[in-house]
Amino acid sequence: MYTELKKIVCEANIELHSLGLAPFTWGNVSQVDREKGVFAIKPSGVPYSELTPEKIVVVSLSDGSVVEGDYNPSSDTPTHYVLYKEFAELGGVVHTHSVNASAFAQAGRCIPAYGTTHADFSYTAVPCTRALTEEEVKTEYELNTGKVIVEHFDAKSLDVQSTPAVLVRSHAPFAFGKNASDAVHNAAVLEIVAEMALKTELIKRDTKDIDKYLSDKHYFRKHGKDAYYGQK
Amino acid sequence: MYTELKKIVCEANIELHSLGLAPFTWGNVSQVDREKGVFAIKPSGVPYSELTPEKIVVVSLSDGSVVEGDYNPSSDTPTHYVLYKEFAELGGVVHTHSVNASAFAQAGRCIPAYGTTHADFSYTAVPCTRALTEEEVKTEYELNTGKVIVEHFDAKSLDVQSTPAVLVRSHAPFAFGKNASDAVHNAAVLEIVAEMALKTELIKRDTKDIDKYLSDKHYFRKHGKDAYYGQK
Amino acid sequence: MYTELKKIVCEANIELHSLGLAPFTWGNVSQVDREKGVFAIKPSGVPYSELTPEKIVVVSLSDGSVVEGDYNPSSDTPTHYVLYKEFAELGGVVHTHSVNASAFAQAGRCIPAYGTTHADFSYTAVPCTRALTEEEVKTEYELNTGKVIVEHFDAKSLDVQSTPAVLVRSHAPFAFGKNASDAVHNAAVLEIVAEMALKTELIKRDTKDIDKYLSDKHYFRKHGKDAYYGQK
Amino acid sequence: MYTELKKIVCEANIELHSLGLAPFTWGNVSQVDREKGVFAIKPSGVPYSELTPEKIVVVSLSDGSVVEGDYNPSSDTPTHYVLYKEFAELGGVVHTHSVNASAFAQAGRCIPAYGTTHADFSYTAVPCTRALTEEEVKTEYELNTGKVIVEHFDAKSLDVQSTPAVLVRSHAPFAFGKNASDAVHNAAVLEIVAEMALKTELIKRDTKDIDKYLSDKHYFRKHGKDAYYGQK
Repeated sequence: MYTELKKIVCEANIELHSLGLAPFTWGNVSQVDREKGVFAIKPSGVPYSELTPEKIVVVSLSDGSVVEGDYNPSSDTPTHYVLYKEFAELGGVVHTHSVNASAFAQAGRCIPAYGTTHADFSYTAVPCTRALTEEEVKTEYELNTGKVIVEHFDAKSLDVQSTPAVLVRSHAPFAFGKNASDAVHNAAVLEIVAEMALKTELIKRDTKDIDKYLSDKHYFRKHGKDAYYGQK
Repeated sequence: MYTELKKIVCEANIELHSLGLAPFTWGNVSQVDREKGVFAIKPSGVPYSELTPEKIVVVSLSDGSVVEGDYNPSSDTPTHYVLYKEFAELGGVVHTHSVNASAFAQAGRCIPAYGTTHADFSYTAVPCTRALTEEEVKTEYELNTGKVIVEHFDAKSLDVQSTPAVLVRSHAPFAFGKNASDAVHNAAVLEIVAEMALKTELIKRDTKDIDKYLSDKHYFRKHGKDAYYGQK
Repeated sequence: MYTELKKIVCEANIELHSLGLAPFTWGNVSQVDREKGVFAIKPSGVPYSELTPEKIVVVSLSDGSVVEGDYNPSSDTPTHYVLYKEFAELGGVVHTHSVNASAFAQAGRCIPAYGTTHADFSYTAVPCTRALTEEEVKTEYELNTGKVIVEHFDAKSLDVQSTPAVLVRSHAPFAFGKNASDAVHNAAVLEIVAEMALKTELIKRDTKDIDKYLSDKHYFRKHGKDAYYGQK
Repeated sequence: MYTELKKIVCEANIELHSLGLAPFTWGNVSQVDREKGVFAIKPSGVPYSELTPEKIVVVSLSDGSVVEGDYNPSSDTPTHYVLYKEFAELGGVVHTHSVNASAFAQAGRCIPAYGTTHADFSYTAVPCTRALTEEEVKTEYELNTGKVIVEHFDAKSLDVQSTPAVLVRSHAPFAFGKNASDAVHNAAVLEIVAEMALKTELIKRDTKDIDKYLSDKHYFRKHGKDAYYGQK
């Protein structure tokens, strides 16, 4: 019933692994089908070399329960669930522990927008959430991870289209997209942007953020109705 | 009509991607044919795996308009246009967001000449331009990017043969060559030289520039009429 | 007689090399068979491309002597011997000189637990032993290397299941597992965790350790009777 | 006449390139045949993909002139010549611009012996020569590069067996071996050791050198008459 969705999600997961962003069984990619009220996600702990569309798990957007599939879904499924529920414009979600982005998350710092590579990708700095409280971790941890992301985006008036990634403090990044493949792309760009930011600070510790007018120019060159990058 | 030029430019773009210097659709390579009054350049936003000579766009040196090709040229085409117009000895141009060189651009610093690897490649430090003004960004941004490079080279009496790369502040590098392939080579060497400079500073923060006489020796060993590197 | 054990150990050694953790002839992997009272280990100085199950050496758990095999066992065999003798729950041991983990060992520092990537892997920081004394180095060096690891684990009440790796000061890491393959996996994760910790400190020098409740959550999500990561 | 020697040197050069230590046409490997009074070396500026034994150049140990070959020898040939003349125990020489080792050379610092990975490879720190004077650079530069290395080894009572690599200040490393293949191995280990030293300092800026007794143990475990690493 969800054949096409599972195929898409399987391929996006394998692409994530091929890009070197998810070694071993780490990482997970999902995509939502809002008409059918479900999202499909990687099964938990399955090596990418053994991943097939049949093993992808389909989850209900109503209550987060498994609708189709014989495997346990990713342990991070409740995080994806909250994100799809709360961000109406969200089509795909990726979670990785990519090294440079995770290092910023571990340091509890957002990734500053230092240049046009960043601005081509995100309209803002890549934010870093607050730490979860002990209570939030002990009960419904993965659900609360999603809630803390939503809380941060609400508090800062961010949206997942112009801010396509977030760092969960002491943990690792989540990337967003209009579909699974787009989210994988953003997860990959995020890792490059993180490495570039780290090296920028090594070269000049007190580097200032990119000028807002230059950032705007690059962001809107690639995004929105006046974009002129690429083909029509 | 521009079959050979488009083939050369297609191959140089694919080489840039193969070297890891242009992930996704990033980066662009062009080459000029001054007799025919045109240059050929990568189409905008096309993945390298789908690139063919037929998709390469040919642009007029007179006014920057498209002369041949069904695709939109790279969004950075006006930058290439200005560079070819203003630098008579320029044969090929490459733009990348390679990580180490872009990190120097983001930090707003030139890449100092710390050793012979640098001197084999460039007679000077790799310069970093000033930031573009808000006006320059809002109107004809890509054209003004070229103009700011030219302004810097003029002010410092630099030329694109002995200074085969430049960093645009808060943005990323452009590399130059006598043709597209040579410019790709210079873009690759630039990235190595940038990584080496960053690491040199991590090892010794206050490293001094290479002695001028050693730099001259290496530069002229490989370049100019008295060069004795390689075969005749 | 030890055909299966030697095959397993051969494959785990080749896997270690494939993961880039053991260039040239560096590194060694062993696995114990406690029923038969032996462990099997890589021969000393043999290139991985020439490694076959027949060349794997089988060593007695009683006295550390070679039980089967025509080759000299790894020069680090006495270290493995002590570890198997003293840690009853130990199934596999890996020794590498992987760059990031060895850099922490050379700096004489443990790898702090800065985030969930670390906590998914180890319940504690990755400890760093004291330096061996001149006497311990000059007489039975490799045996004493094992003893110093055991001394550290005893003094700190650590066990090799919840602390699956250790750094020997001025030297390099050993990783532990329930079998050879599991130990190789831990050696690979250790290297990622070490790189991430180094970069975390570059991003924020005074980063605090991960909150204990978050670390516990992640560790026990993957380990022990209440684990819910993966498939049943 | 020098068929075997040229084949060996060709393969060693290609191995250097395969290891990623010599991009483009950079780097060169030579091996000496003291009975025949010659050494063979890579031709200057020839891409590794086009390298064949026939293109290897044979040079006289008496006067440094070309004895066999249609190509210009590496521009660094006079450096190799001096090294073979002055170091009687030297069998192979490699020159690279590998990034981490060259960064130490650019910083004008030796690579300290911080751990056993270093001690397995070299009995001492990897030394860094003084800068060449303007006179030494302007006249017979490559010959003087060799002489400055010899001067440093003489002044510090070093030998190329126990100190198998050197950094030429502001330039890059040379590695030594009992033959071309062994020198390539040492050039590769040098680059790993350099990266590890750089990272060790990032982790702990004031790291002390490895204890002499531990360094001795590791060095003599692999080198000299009492070595017990590897097979007989």
